[in-house]
Amino acid sequence: MADNGSVEEFLATAVDAAKKAGEIIRKGFYQTKHVEHKGQVDLVTETDKACEDLVFNHLKQHYPSHKFIGEETTAANGASELTDEPTWIVDPLDGTTNFVHGFPFVCVSIGLTIGKVPTVGVVYNPIMDELFTGILGKGAFLNGSPIRVSSQTELVKSLLATEAGTKRDKSTLDASTNRINILLFKVRSLRMTGSCALNLCGIACGRLDLFYELGYGGPWDVAAGVLIVKEAGGLVYDPFGKDFDITVPQVAASNPSLKDAFLEALQH
Amino acid sequence: MADNGSVEEFLATAVDAAKKAGEIIRKGFYQTKHVEHKGQVDLVTETDKACEDLVFNHLKQHYPSHKFIGEETTAANGASELTDEPTWIVDPLDGTTNFVHGFPFVCVSIGLTIGKVPTVGVVYNPIMDELFTGILGKGAFLNGSPIRVSSQTELVKSLLATEAGTKRDKSTLDASTNRINILLFKVRSLRMTGSCALNLCGIACGRLDLFYELGYGGPWDVAAGVLIVKEAGGLVYDPFGKDFDITVPQVAASNPSLKDAFLEALQH
Repeated sequence: MADNGSVEEFLATAVDAAKKAGEIIRKGFYQTKHVEHKGQVDLVTETDKACEDLVFNHLKQHYPSHKFIGEETTAANGASELTDEPTWIVDPLDGTTNFVHGFPFVCVSIGLTIGKVPTVGVVYNPIMDELFTGILGKGAFLNGSPIRVSSQTELVKSLLATEAGTKRDKSTLDASTNRINILLFKVRSLRMTGSCALNLCGIACGRLDLFYELGYGGPWDVAAGVLIVKEAGGLVYDPFGKDFDITVPQVAASNPSLKDAFLEALQH
Repeated sequence: MADNGSVEEFLATAVDAAKKAGEIIRKGFYQTKHVEHKGQVDLVTETDKACEDLVFNHLKQHYPSHKFIGEETTAANGASELTDEPTWIVDPLDGTTNFVHGFPFVCVSIGLTIGKVPTVGVVYNPIMDELFTGILGKGAFLNGSPIRVSSQTELVKSLLATEAGTKRDKSTLDASTNRINILLFKVRSLRMTGSCALNLCGIACGRLDLFYELGYGGPWDVAAGVLIVKEAGGLVYDPFGKDFDITVPQVAASNPSLKDAFLEALQH
């Protein structure tokens, strides 16, 4: 098949891959409770690897000349540089802690950049059967229906999401809870779901008004979600006011009305 | 009908009521995005009231001599004393902030105490179509299948849930984020879902290992959930080591293996 398919073809191929990977995740999700604790870790590794192989093989079969960046391959081969070439950036299983515990916020995330610009995004939660999709310039969708960011204009009425992260050194953790403390005086409430990609999709469909996360794993956590947020009318930005850089693991997202107030709140 | 039905009849009646209230919640849930912000508040109030009326009318029709305690009636009539009489304790819509925002953790919670002992519990999330049930001495179930608390024995591998709460005074909020800071050094990660009743059910089915919350609205938030946790093999206790009292708004829950370590972590 041609490598230079239309973006609609790229999306359809990515959705196929996400649905197939979702089957593997769903199967593992309902098994984790029935394996011993040591076995759970193996099950995560196996599921992660099986999903990444499936997604990469599926995409490579269709687009052999495209580039590929994924958590597993990066762990094995070192960081992959993002080039202008069409590049698939894949998190085969976002929310691994949730997967182990059976908490239903898990997903496969597949993003395609062309000229370093996120162009196609697919995030699929196989437990809740929610498929978020987006194509650059052509909108964002949840299970085929158009989605929009919230219309909230006031921080004090906004629902914020963030994550505790995985780092447990004192300075990171103190800064993290201090930031949460300051923000809680300014927003309505806080949610933590354990999935960066699904938090971005939560912004895109207006379930969440504000999201930021620092220190997540890599571009695979956000490559699909940032496009979906933007195509839903939202903004994705660096939480400290710089330009957002997909290779730097810090992200903030909201609708346009809340951006300035959110950035100000994040600086204090 | 007889007021002195079997506990199985009480449960079946409560499930009927919860499913009907769930229909109202589900309908409102998908409307909130299409009403103006002022209208959203009205929609919450209307949905809350409609669900409470439906649940109370349904239960009163079957059990006219039973007592009733609910958030709406308590707000209108002042605190209702819990007596030894069979008493239905109802939260018609737990997770109102989630309801407004379209975040899928909302539920109706119906508990029955007899001699002040939680005896029947129903928690129904109509968005995820998850029905949690329990009868004293007869086990806990999710959509009819038996559930158990997690088998986790180590704090460091445990998934913790709590809530930011609604109080925004400095001393409460500082104490709350300080407690979160201390706990994050000791557990694997943190989730905040916005529903006390669903957090308890998360403990019951092993999705969560540890849960505590201080300062929630009233006994209606926990009356059903505490029974479901206990019937799933878990423990419900006061987060500061006292005896759990359903009329005091502070609760902790876990499997038996984690209780001592969790209580110790909560004191520091």
